[in-house]
Amino acid sequence: MTELPNCETLLLAYDRGVLQITLNRPDCRNAMSLRMVEELRAVLAAAGGDREVRALVLRGTAGHFCAGGDIKDMAAARSAGADAYRTLNRAFGSLLEEAQSVPQVLVAALEGAVLGGGFGLACVSDIAIAHEGAQFGLPETSLGILPAQIAPFVAKRIGLTQARRLALTAARFDGAEAWRLGLVHYCEANTEALDQRLAEVLGQIRQCAPQANARTKQLLLATETTPLGTLLDEAADRFAEAVTGPEGTEGTLAFVQKRKPEWCEG
Amino acid sequence: MTELPNCETLLLAYDRGVLQITLNRPDCRNAMSLRMVEELRAVLAAAGGDREVRALVLRGTAGHFCAGGDIKDMAAARSAGADAYRTLNRAFGSLLEEAQSVPQVLVAALEGAVLGGGFGLACVSDIAIAHEGAQFGLPETSLGILPAQIAPFVAKRIGLTQARRLALTAARFDGAEAWRLGLVHYCEANTEALDQRLAEVLGQIRQCAPQANARTKQLLLATETTPLGTLLDEAADRFAEAVTGPEGTEGTLAFVQKRKPEWCEG
Amino acid sequence: MTELPNCETLLLAYDRGVLQITLNRPDCRNAMSLRMVEELRAVLAAAGGDREVRALVLRGTAGHFCAGGDIKDMAAARSAGADAYRTLNRAFGSLLEEAQSVPQVLVAALEGAVLGGGFGLACVSDIAIAHEGAQFGLPETSLGILPAQIAPFVAKRIGLTQARRLALTAARFDGAEAWRLGLVHYCEANTEALDQRLAEVLGQIRQCAPQANARTKQLLLATETTPLGTLLDEAADRFAEAVTGPEGTEGTLAFVQKRKPEWCEG
Repeated sequence: MTELPNCETLLLAYDRGVLQITLNRPDCRNAMSLRMVEELRAVLAAAGGDREVRALVLRGTAGHFCAGGDIKDMAAARSAGADAYRTLNRAFGSLLEEAQSVPQVLVAALEGAVLGGGFGLACVSDIAIAHEGAQFGLPETSLGILPAQIAPFVAKRIGLTQARRLALTAARFDGAEAWRLGLVHYCEANTEALDQRLAEVLGQIRQCAPQANARTKQLLLATETTPLGTLLDEAADRFAEAVTGPEGTEGTLAFVQKRKPEWCEG
Repeated sequence: MTELPNCETLLLAYDRGVLQITLNRPDCRNAMSLRMVEELRAVLAAAGGDREVRALVLRGTAGHFCAGGDIKDMAAARSAGADAYRTLNRAFGSLLEEAQSVPQVLVAALEGAVLGGGFGLACVSDIAIAHEGAQFGLPETSLGILPAQIAPFVAKRIGLTQARRLALTAARFDGAEAWRLGLVHYCEANTEALDQRLAEVLGQIRQCAPQANARTKQLLLATETTPLGTLLDEAADRFAEAVTGPEGTEGTLAFVQKRKPEWCEG
Repeated sequence: MTELPNCETLLLAYDRGVLQITLNRPDCRNAMSLRMVEELRAVLAAAGGDREVRALVLRGTAGHFCAGGDIKDMAAARSAGADAYRTLNRAFGSLLEEAQSVPQVLVAALEGAVLGGGFGLACVSDIAIAHEGAQFGLPETSLGILPAQIAPFVAKRIGLTQARRLALTAARFDGAEAWRLGLVHYCEANTEALDQRLAEVLGQIRQCAPQANARTKQLLLATETTPLGTLLDEAADRFAEAVTGPEGTEGTLAFVQKRKPEWCEG
C-alpha cells in the first residue's frame, strides 16, 4: 500500500486490505495528545487515498482504547492562552470529521477507557465492537469544561435523547449499556470473543466490493445534509455507474456463474 | 372505493376501509420488476386520493415479502445502457417517496425474504410487523452494486449508526433483530400470530379519525424538512381546523356522550 | 433564588440548586389548562435566568403526571371560534420550545397518566424517569383532533419510525415500553425506587459545573439546526472560554489536587 507517515504515538500494521491503527501511549491510557491527533489525521489522509485499503481498524494498546484529551497538552495551551485552546480543540473536531468520512470501512475495537475524545472517536466508526467491561463516559462537565467537538457526534450517533443525559451527568457506563444505547454494534464478554467478532466483521467487509462500499458510505453520510429528492437523483447516477462499471460487471457475472467475485479473498 | 388499475404483478383486495396489496410474483420471491414498480405507483396514486380507504396493507405471496430488484430487468437495462439503469433505479426511489407519503396508514407484513428493494419498502411503512424467521438484508455491495435508492430510507428508519453497518457488510438478520433495531414494530413467532397482530393494528387504526390521521402523518413527515417554529405555526392552523371540523366535532361530542365516534366500525 | 411568580396550578419548592415544579390540578389528573401553560412559561422564564438554579424537576400531584389538554378550555375556545383554538394550541407549543431550551437540566418524573400534552412535556426533558405503571399515549386522533404541537417533539425524541405508529394508532403503553423506545432513561418498579433514582440523578448533576452543563445543552440542541462545520467552530470558541474561565480553572485545579470542585455539594 501507499507509504504511511512515521508515527510516534501510533502503531500501524497492514494485512490484505486491512490497516490496523493502534493508539500507543500506554502510560496514559492512550490519551489523545496534539501529536496523536496530527498523526491520526496524516494516516487517515494517506490511507483514504489508497484503493487497496478496504478497512481500517482502530484500537488501543494495553487494554484501553483512549482516555480522552491529554492533560499535559492542556497545561501547555494554558500558558499560550485561549487561542491555543481553540486551535487544539478544533483540530480534534477535524480529526472526527475526517475519520467519519474516510472512504474505507472504519471498525473500532473498544476496551478499557473510552472517555471524552475516545468516546468521540468511537462515535464516527462504521462498526463498533465493545468489550463488556469497557468504561464509556463524557466526564467533561464534571471538570468544568465541555465535550465541545464530541457532543455533536454523540448526538448523531445515539440521538439527542440519550446524548443529553450522558453529557449533562458525566455518567459512566459499560459495554452492555453501550450496546443497548446503539452506540456500538456488538458487545463481547472478553478479548478473545472481541477478536473473533472483529475477524468475522472483516470477513463480511471482504465480501463487499470496495468501491461500492465507499460510494454507499458517501450516500449514507449525505443523508445528513442533502435533501431527499436531490440525493435520490445523485444515487441513481451512482447506481448506473456502479452497475456498468468493473465491480458491477464482475459482481453480477459471478452471481450468474455461482462463484465468488474476485474481490473476495480466501 | 375508487376503481383500481388492472395489475399483473399485484393482487388487490378491499374490505371496510382497508386495501390489501399483495406482491404476486411467487416464482421469484416477489422480486421487484419495473412492471411491479409501475403498478404499485398506480395503485398508491388511486388509493391515496380515496378518502374511504384508511389503511393499506402491503404483503407478499407464498411466504416471502420481496427479494429485491429483478435480475431480468437488470439484464434488459444492460443492453440499453447506463441511462436505462438510471431511470429504472430512480423509478424505484419515486415509489418509495410516494409510499412514504401516502395519506393512509401503511402497514407492512414481512415474511421470508425482505431484501434490497423489499427492505426499502419495509422502511417506508408506518407500522411493520415481522415474522421472526424473516430474512432481512442489503446484499447490494456484495454484488458490486449500491443500495442507492434504499440507503437514504434505511438511514431515516433506523439511524445512520445501524444503517452503515448493514449496508457495508451485507449482513443478513432475522425478525427479532429487526425488532431490536427498531426497523419493525412487532416480531411474531409464526404466521398465525402475525395475522392476529395485523388484525389488532387495523382495529386500532379504525379507532382513529381518518382525516386526523392523514394530517398527523403529514406533520410527522414534515419534521424532516420544516424548521420547528414554522412547523408549530402550521400545526396550530391544522389543529384549529380539525377541532372545528366534522371529525373534531363528532369526536369530542362522542367523548362527552361516552359513545364511540362514528368512524369506529364494529 | 429569584422570586418566582405566584401560581394557582403549580407547586414550587426550591432546595440547593434544584427547583421542583409540581403540576397541581389533582381533580383532573393535572390536565393542562391555559392557565397552567402560562404559569409554567412564567416559572421557566424566571428560573432560566437564575444561575443559582442547576436543575428543574417536573412532576405531578396525586400519582399522575399530566392527562393532556383540559376539556373545559377546549369548550370555552369552541364558543370563541377557530382563532382561539389556534392561539391556545400554539401557546402550548411555545411552552414545549421554552422547556426544551431552558439552560438548566430538566428532569421529568413520570407517574400515572402521561398523555397528549403530558407526553409532549416528557419529550422535552433532559432526563426522564418513569414509573413502570405509568400510562403513555397520544389519544388525539381517536378524538378526531391532532397531536399538533406534540408530534414534532415526539418525532425528535424517539425517531419518526416509532412516533408514526404511536400517533396513528393512539396506542397506550407503560413505563417499560417507554424505556425500550428510548422515550425515558429509567423505568422504576415503584415510587420509592423512582424517588431514589431521582436523587441519584440530581447527585450526578451536582457533580457537573453549572455553566458547562448549560453550554453543553445549548450545543446539543444546536445539532438539530446548525451545519456541522459551523457548530464545531462555535464549539471550539465555547471550549476555549470554558477552560480559561472560572469553572475550567477550578475544575482542572481540583482534578490535579485530587479534591472535589467547589460546585459539588455535600
